[in-house]
Amino acid sequence: MEALVSFLQIKAVVPGLGDNVADLDRLRRAAAEQLNGVEPRVAYPRLAGLAEAFRAAGFAGTAVVNQPPEGPELVDFLAGSAAGPLAVALDLGTTHLEATLLDLATSAKLATGHRENSQIRFGADILSRIHHAATPGGLAALHGAIIGDINELIRQLAGAAGVPVAVIRALSVAGNTAMTHFFLNLNPHHLIREPYIPMVNVVDPPAAGDLKLDIHPAAPVWVLPSVGSYFGGDLLAGILAIGLDRSEAVAMLIDVGTNAEVIIGNRDWLMACAGAAGPALEGGVARMGMRAGPGAIDHVEFDQASGALSYTTIDGAKPRGLCGSGIIDLAAGLYLARFIDLKGKFRPEAAGSRLVETPDGPAFVVVPAADSADGRPVLMAQIDLDAVMRSKAAMYSILTTLVNQVGVKFEELAHIYVAGAFGKHIAPRQAITLGMLPDLPLATYQPVGNSSLAGAELVLRDAGARRACRELVRKITYLELNVNQEFMLRFSGSRFIPHTEHRLFPSVPFFKD
Amino acid sequence: MEALVSFLQIKAVVPGLGDNVADLDRLRRAAAEQLNGVEPRVAYPRLAGLAEAFRAAGFAGTAVVNQPPEGPELVDFLAGSAAGPLAVALDLGTTHLEATLLDLATSAKLATGHRENSQIRFGADILSRIHHAATPGGLAALHGAIIGDINELIRQLAGAAGVPVAVIRALSVAGNTAMTHFFLNLNPHHLIREPYIPMVNVVDPPAAGDLKLDIHPAAPVWVLPSVGSYFGGDLLAGILAIGLDRSEAVAMLIDVGTNAEVIIGNRDWLMACAGAAGPALEGGVARMGMRAGPGAIDHVEFDQASGALSYTTIDGAKPRGLCGSGIIDLAAGLYLARFIDLKGKFRPEAAGSRLVETPDGPAFVVVPAADSADGRPVLMAQIDLDAVMRSKAAMYSILTTLVNQVGVKFEELAHIYVAGAFGKHIAPRQAITLGMLPDLPLATYQPVGNSSLAGAELVLRDAGARRACRELVRKITYLELNVNQEFMLRFSGSRFIPHTEHRLFPSVPFFKD
Repeated sequence: MEALVSFLQIKAVVPGLGDNVADLDRLRRAAAEQLNGVEPRVAYPRLAGLAEAFRAAGFAGTAVVNQPPEGPELVDFLAGSAAGPLAVALDLGTTHLEATLLDLATSAKLATGHRENSQIRFGADILSRIHHAATPGGLAALHGAIIGDINELIRQLAGAAGVPVAVIRALSVAGNTAMTHFFLNLNPHHLIREPYIPMVNVVDPPAAGDLKLDIHPAAPVWVLPSVGSYFGGDLLAGILAIGLDRSEAVAMLIDVGTNAEVIIGNRDWLMACAGAAGPALEGGVARMGMRAGPGAIDHVEFDQASGALSYTTIDGAKPRGLCGSGIIDLAAGLYLARFIDLKGKFRPEAAGSRLVETPDGPAFVVVPAADSADGRPVLMAQIDLDAVMRSKAAMYSILTTLVNQVGVKFEELAHIYVAGAFGKHIAPRQAITLGMLPDLPLATYQPVGNSSLAGAELVLRDAGARRACRELVRKITYLELNVNQEFMLRFSGSRFIPHTEHRLFPSVPFFKD
Repeated sequence: MEALVSFLQIKAVVPGLGDNVADLDRLRRAAAEQLNGVEPRVAYPRLAGLAEAFRAAGFAGTAVVNQPPEGPELVDFLAGSAAGPLAVALDLGTTHLEATLLDLATSAKLATGHRENSQIRFGADILSRIHHAATPGGLAALHGAIIGDINELIRQLAGAAGVPVAVIRALSVAGNTAMTHFFLNLNPHHLIREPYIPMVNVVDPPAAGDLKLDIHPAAPVWVLPSVGSYFGGDLLAGILAIGLDRSEAVAMLIDVGTNAEVIIGNRDWLMACAGAAGPALEGGVARMGMRAGPGAIDHVEFDQASGALSYTTIDGAKPRGLCGSGIIDLAAGLYLARFIDLKGKFRPEAAGSRLVETPDGPAFVVVPAADSADGRPVLMAQIDLDAVMRSKAAMYSILTTLVNQVGVKFEELAHIYVAGAFGKHIAPRQAITLGMLPDLPLATYQPVGNSSLAGAELVLRDAGARRACRELVRKITYLELNVNQEFMLRFSGSRFIPHTEHRLFPSVPFFKD
């Protein structure tokens, strides 16, 4: 379980004529007794300071040892004893950052926090930021913004725990491949150009000082490796967090963010793919869509008899819009109430008075203006529904293409883990009704929260997880859907509710029109 | 024989949709094929430059890989192929620097050179420089002076070979412990204070850029480790150069510089000690003494019948003074001609007209003023002879204390290797006559030249020698003579020619007065 950074309590023999080992060699030998006999390295710029601190402390105190893959490195020596070491795990999202402050000695979580990604001012989505990076000073601005955000978030965590940021001795970072490039100040140009090649997947841990992070400058920064341009360290962290790479049974992990990213496999093999199933579900595209937050409608129900609609909002606030799970509930409910047909188009003969005309065409009134937070009705327009249909078709096509590729049936999956806000709020029943997720017993679906952050926490604590990081990069086979003919065919067949082949969804009522 | 830095010819598969490995990972994997499957590390500050150079070169060219103890590190990528790599081995002496420019691919020596140590302006001897280091700015001045000298010497070598200094990709440095501290900008304070503890013995290789050396900034600097304050990397280099650590037979290495440093042992054990036997022999103390150079009398002979003196000088120039071997020849000749007694004191009744009175007392005229280079006579004064007697007594006492400590007889030594200018010019016969070296068959004595430089060359080429460096630091037992009672007793007994116990020197004529 060896942590990424350790405090070793050292009490060395004081030198004498009969024991003339040099100061730094003495310290290294004393440390080696607690490092399976391996003497830690010392980088030249820290050599004199370490030797002097050790002597000044009377040859006893606390040695700070980093544990990068190439072996232990001695980076600091503190007089006396010290609690910790403290470390921060970071989920580096495209829109939000989420972080935990941990005590690696006790595994206690001292603080958690989150913050918006201020790169949004350069572009809401990754694609526009990658284009911005190509402008003069663009990459530096994107890099500077994210480093500033991280410093600010860490200050927030340290403040909550009542410690200075400089005592934070390690950081782990899980982000998608583009965010990882921005974080490391690497040119993302080729990420979005065929054949979609990252500059780097596996990164030897930089020192925090190299990245101008405000934590201790010698703190190692463990970057969760990417597997490809569309498969980042955030997803790899998820695999580690749920233990997919150690599971005997075959299981699946679905993470819906900007993209839908999916992995199937077990301890012997893993295959992954990703596709643009996300936007409509993430709430970032539909005009009434919003992130899961106060005022977001997260669940919708239609009374079977009356067709009357009821809903809940996050925090019970007045409704402002629909988050991903609300959109899926609504779409499924519209179908079961027969307000939309199997192509996802409104049936005016049924929806009737609930439809209004807007400049963008017909829209369904979810919440009348009088009941909403801002005096404007919450609407679901036909073009929003069309986007939902594309997303659900993409999701199901991704899943079927992937299981077909590895020759596994959905029924054979021990679990389908669903990560993130999507996993937390979604009702698998409604997603099945829409034909977005396969028609399996509901217990198959397991929400796993922010598995990216959980994986980032894990690599701070566990050398086995850090080794697994690097093994997984080679172990995971990545299926490129952008050029996959099978995916395109499946996508066409999935653009109906629940599916062209109704036998695939026995639990879903089927209407002929 | 793996060199400290290697050029790997790389021709990687060009990325495509079916092979989307990231640029840097692709390079590392291609390099690993030539590194026993080990992927080289990449330091974060070099990451982007490496990945971009690799792509710009069309995924083919020359990878530059350093080989520090913790495993291979990728530091540069060159388009096309390149000769070399080139590296410099340096003997970092207290008074002189000597260096070789090597092609590590062919082991060819492209240039050799030497230069005075300009730290001399801060003090001729190590002790005064260590005191200077304690003054404000003193250490920085000493460090800056030696770095400037090295840069100048390397420029000289590169100029001779017709290459820019920036193509030099590695450096090895063998110096005594104090010089190594000055080179690394480390405080030498405790080196000369009981219990004589260096700040560091084993140094992880700095990058040349860290030390402001003008060779390629990523070049690793292999510092030959010290064993103690009075046993530096220069002597450890000597052990490697003569293969003492791999020898089955027990042998001895004597290196006379500022100190006389002696090691005895074989592949199973090694014991070392050092003592102040050097100054008079190095030519630095006796007023007529000088380093072995043009005009230095290096050999002296007395005609047994007439007592007439003949001599040779280095390069056949007119005489200016006496180097170490000349001083030893002279002293031995004076004894055999009975011009001095067994205590090393002039016998006026025999030397008679060859003695002159000087303000410092009686002196023997080696070269009359008329025959010398500068119109002043070359003299050997009584007080110079007294210094020679102390030096020879110290040397023999060191040797006997050491062999006694390990329970070996002189006769059991396969070889006595004699390093440096002392070894090159000295006639063992005369040193035996004086009682400075044990009375053994002359073939036992083997001059080995600049073994410090030879060892520095070896570690550039051979990973086994680099591993041996670190093992030797633990393997060598250091005998501290400063507090050794036996040494003090033996020293007293050795202050006669050849020795109080004449039976120890059966080959030397013995005179009662």
